[in-house]
Amino acid sequence: MASIDLNADLGEGYGAWSFGQDEALMRSITSANIACGWHAGDPATMRASVLGCLKAGVAIGAHPGLPDRLGFGRREMALSPDEIYDGVLYQLGALEAFVRASGGRLRHMKPHGALYHMCNQSEAAAEAVARAAADLRCGLAVFAQAGSLLLEAAARHGLPAVAEAFADRAYTASGKLAERSLPGAVLHDPDAVLAQALGIASRGEAGTLEGPVLSLSAATICLHGDRPGAAEAAMLLRRGLEEAGVRVAAPDIGGPAGDGHDGGGGTGKRHER
Amino acid sequence: MASIDLNADLGEGYGAWSFGQDEALMRSITSANIACGWHAGDPATMRASVLGCLKAGVAIGAHPGLPDRLGFGRREMALSPDEIYDGVLYQLGALEAFVRASGGRLRHMKPHGALYHMCNQSEAAAEAVARAAADLRCGLAVFAQAGSLLLEAAARHGLPAVAEAFADRAYTASGKLAERSLPGAVLHDPDAVLAQALGIASRGEAGTLEGPVLSLSAATICLHGDRPGAAEAAMLLRRGLEEAGVRVAAPDIGGPAGDGHDGGGGTGKRHER
Amino acid sequence: MASIDLNADLGEGYGAWSFGQDEALMRSITSANIACGWHAGDPATMRASVLGCLKAGVAIGAHPGLPDRLGFGRREMALSPDEIYDGVLYQLGALEAFVRASGGRLRHMKPHGALYHMCNQSEAAAEAVARAAADLRCGLAVFAQAGSLLLEAAARHGLPAVAEAFADRAYTASGKLAERSLPGAVLHDPDAVLAQALGIASRGEAGTLEGPVLSLSAATICLHGDRPGAAEAAMLLRRGLEEAGVRVAAPDIGGPAGDGHDGGGGTGKRHER
Amino acid sequence: MASIDLNADLGEGYGAWSFGQDEALMRSITSANIACGWHAGDPATMRASVLGCLKAGVAIGAHPGLPDRLGFGRREMALSPDEIYDGVLYQLGALEAFVRASGGRLRHMKPHGALYHMCNQSEAAAEAVARAAADLRCGLAVFAQAGSLLLEAAARHGLPAVAEAFADRAYTASGKLAERSLPGAVLHDPDAVLAQALGIASRGEAGTLEGPVLSLSAATICLHGDRPGAAEAAMLLRRGLEEAGVRVAAPDIGGPAGDGHDGGGGTGKRHER
Repeated sequence: MASIDLNADLGEGYGAWSFGQDEALMRSITSANIACGWHAGDPATMRASVLGCLKAGVAIGAHPGLPDRLGFGRREMALSPDEIYDGVLYQLGALEAFVRASGGRLRHMKPHGALYHMCNQSEAAAEAVARAAADLRCGLAVFAQAGSLLLEAAARHGLPAVAEAFADRAYTASGKLAERSLPGAVLHDPDAVLAQALGIASRGEAGTLEGPVLSLSAATICLHGDRPGAAEAAMLLRRGLEEAGVRVAAPDIGGPAGDGHDGGGGTGKRHER
Repeated sequence: MASIDLNADLGEGYGAWSFGQDEALMRSITSANIACGWHAGDPATMRASVLGCLKAGVAIGAHPGLPDRLGFGRREMALSPDEIYDGVLYQLGALEAFVRASGGRLRHMKPHGALYHMCNQSEAAAEAVARAAADLRCGLAVFAQAGSLLLEAAARHGLPAVAEAFADRAYTASGKLAERSLPGAVLHDPDAVLAQALGIASRGEAGTLEGPVLSLSAATICLHGDRPGAAEAAMLLRRGLEEAGVRVAAPDIGGPAGDGHDGGGGTGKRHER
Repeated sequence: MASIDLNADLGEGYGAWSFGQDEALMRSITSANIACGWHAGDPATMRASVLGCLKAGVAIGAHPGLPDRLGFGRREMALSPDEIYDGVLYQLGALEAFVRASGGRLRHMKPHGALYHMCNQSEAAAEAVARAAADLRCGLAVFAQAGSLLLEAAARHGLPAVAEAFADRAYTASGKLAERSLPGAVLHDPDAVLAQALGIASRGEAGTLEGPVLSLSAATICLHGDRPGAAEAAMLLRRGLEEAGVRVAAPDIGGPAGDGHDGGGGTGKRHER
Repeated sequence: MASIDLNADLGEGYGAWSFGQDEALMRSITSANIACGWHAGDPATMRASVLGCLKAGVAIGAHPGLPDRLGFGRREMALSPDEIYDGVLYQLGALEAFVRASGGRLRHMKPHGALYHMCNQSEAAAEAVARAAADLRCGLAVFAQAGSLLLEAAARHGLPAVAEAFADRAYTASGKLAERSLPGAVLHDPDAVLAQALGIASRGEAGTLEGPVLSLSAATICLHGDRPGAAEAAMLLRRGLEEAGVRVAAPDIGGPAGDGHDGGGGTGKRHER
């Protein structure tokens, strides 16, 4: 039976400022990437997001970003590998405290924005992020774009590497996301999005702008929560996948069961710190 | 045999800005309170401070502060108990990640500046801080001023409560620190400081501005690192205590041995998360 | 002919986060208090808000706050008068640069949130704010709650002092705003709001919770932009006032005309720096 | 008579953290670049620095940086031209308020760190900075590295462009600064530094690593304040220059006299805003 995870960024408000449609989105996704206070998020929001995920049975992940709140972590910065490592470890630890305090388990991490992109292109950045994830010593799965250097780095560190694909973005024949400026680069039609998601989940492939089918192995699909209608689109996609016989669940990354997420079925083997 | 801990705040630089005399001070103290990035400290400094403590055999603690870097966490802010809880838990988790990554153990926490003082006076603030310490779920000892509401709150949450005294500050007959503006409120003479430290460590008492001796039960003495000559004064104090037959060591708070600090001698019972 | 100003806070987004309904609100108000980057606002938002005001003919004011973005400037902080002065002057200067760059004139300032309240109660805080406003040396009018110590301080410094009243909040017989928790403290009915605004604008009085009429001299009414329906309520209020024969315009504070706001009618006397 | 300006960055502390040797350095320099609160500096420090310059007769300039306090503005960030413009204008306005409040005049600006370097390489960055300087509408001189795109951009906007050279850094035959890693790239010998400064001030030339003399037209020399012995080195250099008959003074950029700096001799023509 085909299986896929649906992930989205959550908790990206800050103080008095809200962002996205977290509550509605949480009903459709199976993994959440929670902002950790640097590009977005704050302690109160982190706590609320963790509790929300536990209640909704959504697997909890960390979403560390660059130290650039003004730019929402979307502006590349010339950081050294050590600066990346330190900043990611800081954010992971901060979020993990809230997860632990509420009796849950931090299951994965996915870098945000410019940091996500830096990990696609820079071996040193990818290695720094993976090293921080490993040093948290809780068997964190690492989410990264299919083909990203970060997936290799995570594997080198013995961490579950979870490849991510996009259902609402067109790919090119070379396996990259088509530039947003190109016609057809962003899929708006819910049926087209569902078709691409089904291709990814069932056959490990996606169509391309040029036409030929691309082989694309991914265990999670990234949804966006900050657009009008995002929550409805997510719900439609999930229903469509399930009606087509695809199991929608957080990836099985081992570790203890009973941490309140759909993906459960862990091994019962107690994770060692 | 009388025993006392010597603690000091470390890692209170920020980015390009340094602060205090950490390296020299680390040779005299037995417990360090490491800033966690809010009032001071940053991820790189936190990592370096943790590694320095491990190397020097100093017990590692967290030193969370108010979200006021400009004011160095010294300006009281009207925070709700939840805001205090969330902010402290965030900082504890961030530091704990660095400690865990380097194979050490986070042993205690002590609030900084205005937050420290708020815990002396406000039941709600003290409860919020203690609750955050408890929710980190690693048996954190809580350092607070002798007589502070925070000590009671820590005990309520089943955490080791470690009372702190000052060797270089005069007390009043009511058991409070004398206002700095009063003549004789700050002890500058190393012999007087040592005498007060010995009184605290050996007999559980301190002289007062008014004359009579004050009964003062404390397991740790707070040293300051940000004054000229601070490191030398700390070294003199430690030597004086040891020459007088006082054991200078981190408080025994239970938990695993072998985490690279002097206080060792733990119970061997693996701490449960 | 009765005349009243309608003011509201604008530009209180931050980076990717938006706030309030600035564009719609700008059609009803005659004075805007633009956030200056501390409690809210950022340079791009400040520029956009200034240009929006110039286009809409809304008088431009500064809305400095406490250095507490996480708390939106709503949490009181124990700042010294010098810290208040320095922080307010910094923010005024920053905003004034955008106003100057776009050919406009900064006409007034109104402190935000906790700083606004501190100026009602603390002589030292009020004096610090007024001194900063005076030291900008451009004849800034100072908006403050009717009865606030800040109005006296502004007058001492030779600045136009503009008393502010609320049309959607009930007063007590002692002239203070009724606590929000009291029944009837917040007026929701548009007719009641308009009636109170007309009382303020035409007769200098407001009803009170206790019954008797309160004498209340105010030249501006504060509108809120962050509630659902805020822009529509503002539009209704403005129309209601104008239909009742009240002139709605920015207060005449002297200075050059031709700076693109309704209140115009300046003296033609060039303001001296 | 040969004339040269000596400039240095001042006011780069933050809150409780100090930086450099401002007080001593102020006795040797003729132009100060004062941090504006983004990469370093805070309102209290800005006020103190402005007052210090006025007292010491040092011409006051602004030193805006990137929004990266943690990285001290030294890490390049992918900012859009509008983001650069907005950020620089914000900082210029903030500092100008303190200068105006103390009766002085803001005479120049010089971008800091990574922003300084971005202006050497990116036409768009240079244009954004120059446009912000021009839009402050007070005839600000722009300091930039000899050969920088920022000098051309300043001239395009009708602002005095002041080329900067380094007396303690070796140049290459192509006119660039030699990489610090190259042997001989940094001049440590005070006599060598003085010789290079004299070459710049008197003959408009500097030796190069490769040997041949480089033609180098510059009106100001950059001194560094954050190294041990920096203040003494600055004093030696100034004395050496003056004993060799070079006039050490802020550049004459026009504008009113009587603003408390050495460079005086302005035109008496009141600067128009």
